[in-house]
Amino acid sequence: MVSTKFIKRLDTKYKIRFNNPKLLEEAFTHSSYANEHPENGTRDYEKLEFLGDAVLELAISDYLYRNFRNLNEGELTRMRSNIVDTEGFAEFAQKFGFPAEINLGHGEEKAGARSRKTLLEDVFEAFNGALFLDQGMEAVEHFLSLTVYPLIDAGKFDASRDYKTDLQELLQQDGPVKIEYEVLKEEQLPSNFTVQLVVNGKVLSEGQGHNKKAAEQEAAKSALGKLN
Amino acid sequence: MVSTKFIKRLDTKYKIRFNNPKLLEEAFTHSSYANEHPENGTRDYEKLEFLGDAVLELAISDYLYRNFRNLNEGELTRMRSNIVDTEGFAEFAQKFGFPAEINLGHGEEKAGARSRKTLLEDVFEAFNGALFLDQGMEAVEHFLSLTVYPLIDAGKFDASRDYKTDLQELLQQDGPVKIEYEVLKEEQLPSNFTVQLVVNGKVLSEGQGHNKKAAEQEAAKSALGKLN
Repeated sequence: MVSTKFIKRLDTKYKIRFNNPKLLEEAFTHSSYANEHPENGTRDYEKLEFLGDAVLELAISDYLYRNFRNLNEGELTRMRSNIVDTEGFAEFAQKFGFPAEINLGHGEEKAGARSRKTLLEDVFEAFNGALFLDQGMEAVEHFLSLTVYPLIDAGKFDASRDYKTDLQELLQQDGPVKIEYEVLKEEQLPSNFTVQLVVNGKVLSEGQGHNKKAAEQEAAKSALGKLN
Repeated sequence: MVSTKFIKRLDTKYKIRFNNPKLLEEAFTHSSYANEHPENGTRDYEKLEFLGDAVLELAISDYLYRNFRNLNEGELTRMRSNIVDTEGFAEFAQKFGFPAEINLGHGEEKAGARSRKTLLEDVFEAFNGALFLDQGMEAVEHFLSLTVYPLIDAGKFDASRDYKTDLQELLQQDGPVKIEYEVLKEEQLPSNFTVQLVVNGKVLSEGQGHNKKAAEQEAAKSALGKLN
């Protein structure tokens, strides 16, 4: 059962009071617990997680679109995927005191599931799915405005390093230099690219990746490692 | 320029009238056109596509969650990914007369981009992103209720075949049979699995995939091919 203390904390800190407390309970119920306690009739959080995943994706996309006008689509996408990932969501769940509230079965408890990042991510998504069902998108956005959005504004999820750009800047600090990435090998099933980086006609490094772009990044990273 | 005929059709068929027509224009503008016509000042659709992708994901997830109560999370996820894919969205775009309205650069026009499925998918997402910005989620849901949701209800996107289940049903029609999937090989970078299907101790087939699950499906598919 979600604790009274937690319910009170949701109210005082985030002004969240569930109209349907069953939804909150469901968001914190792992399948292992639901299986062990059929008498409670509480469903596990999986369907709420399915919905919450999409709720968070839109809330965060919308926030980025409206507040980072200068970023192009590629930069927005990279920033979104920095936010919407297991690590990040698990960290939020931890920060807001979610782990202690999760209804877990005995086996999973013993196996340390309470601190498992994928489970914490699931619960964070399910909680937002429940909040969306209970009070709509505005309530989710209000919760995120008190928790996640400030971290976005503080730059916590800024686009990760772009090695190709870094390398170009390093090589061209004294003027233009011809930089080429040549595909050496492209394997099928699943596709695996090997790319060769040629600077002014001289092979500098190689990189591998599941697509050309990733392989180029790896080649640039390797070149940076050699050059720095 | 989006044609007057199309604007009229949006109004009469779907009751959609954009408050900000610039958003509609942006949704139909490919980068190749924006680059060739900087004097128009119209941005390309890429940022609207970023947003529209998340808008559609939530609208469809929400619809499935509320209307397919009997499906579990795995079934909902499979159905969602059957709907939210390139083929499907491109088909919608085609059906609603989007291709003729796309602003394309000369090179892309010559290269046949107007019927390229990935481009049609992008424009369908961008259009829904524009509608969301212009009139909110309700307008998107209204549009989908006239176009996409009826196809969902008609079973067009029902969970695709699950070969493992099909094979199990076929093999076990006369009683229990031991079915094992053994990982033969697991390659790194990117991971590629080879799985061997063993039925009652006898190797029946092999399958490859980018993860174990996909490889198992392939093995089951191959076995079904041999058995049917």
